Order: sequence, then structure tokens, then C-alpha cells
Amino acid sequence: MSTDLYGFVAAFLTTIAFLPQVLRTYKTKSADDVSILMLLMFISGLCFWIIYGSKLHSLPVVIANTITLILNSSILAMKLAYSLNDSKRDLTV
Amino acid sequence: MSTDLYGFVAAFLTTIAFLPQVLRTYKTKSADDVSILMLLMFISGLCFWIIYGSKLHSLPVVIANTITLILNSSILAMKLAYSLNDSKRDLTV
Repeated sequence: MSTDLYGFVAAFLTTIAFLPQVLRTYKTKSADDVSILMLLMFISGLCFWIIYGSKLHSLPVVIANTITLILNSSILAMKLAYSLNDSKRDLTV
Repeated sequence: MSTDLYGFVAAFLTTIAFLPQVLRTYKTKSADDVSILMLLMFISGLCFWIIYGSKLHSLPVVIANTITLILNSSILAMKLAYSLNDSKRDLTV
């Protein structure tokens, strides 16, 4: 297995991994157990990865992190929406 | 801000982001809302990143992904342990 192939498989898995979380959160309408601080830090980090990738003109870094950003922003948006709906604003760590 | 600095900030944030999730899961003893499929796919991807980093002799890639792997494995272990404790084996997506 070539070195690049390990990288592609790695990038694919760590990017697409958040899709099951999006689907689960949408299905259960609950993300209480998901840390909002994790989402905020992760999303901030992804923005830095996208800037870094842009500066390096690395399309794979930009694309992979943009997809991950969209998925994690969806989880965050659902968490906030469902928390407000439940009137349980448990936004602690 | 130098290009490398964006990369370091990005790597720091997306690595350490999982610490609040570890602490939250430990505190609440619940990770029902966290998708097990996400954890399994993400952990598999991290293993590929570590192999990829090793093959490239890239210590930053190996170290950052090893820390993320440890944090995510802890979340998975706690999710499984608390699910078993509750006798609620909801291991669906």
C-alpha cells in the first residue's frame, strides 16, 4: 500500500466520520452529550486548517476541512436548536 | 501571521478539542448522543494518519494524531462502559 494511499484513506475516514453524528443527531433530536466546547474548538481549528491550506494552495486540505466544517457546523446548529426547543440551555462544558 | 503558525494553531485546536468531550462524558457518565459509528470511523482514520505520518517520518503528524487517538479512544471506552452499566445497549448509528 503506497504512502499516499494511507493519507487518502486517513483523510477520507476522518472527514466522513462526522456524517453518522449528523444523522444520529437529526434522528434523535438530541445532542446534550456532545460537548459544545469541543464543537467550537474543533470548528475554529478547521477554519485555521482551511486558511493554512489556502495559503499553501493545497486543494485536498481545503476540500477535506471544508466538508468537515460543514458537517460539524450542522451538528452545532442542531445542538443549539434542540437545546432551545427543549428550553434546556445546558451549554456547559 | 506566518503560514506555519496557522498550521500549528489548526493542529493544536483540532487535537485538543476532544478534551472537553472527554471531561463532559466523564462528568455526566453519558455518551448516548455521541455516534459510535463516528467514533469508530474517526479512530480508524487516526490510525491511518499515524501510519501515514510514520512513513513520512513526520513527527508532528504522528504526535498530534496519537493524542487525538488517545482522547477519542477514551470517549469510546466510556461510551461502551456507561452503555453496559445502564444495560441500555443502544449501539445504533
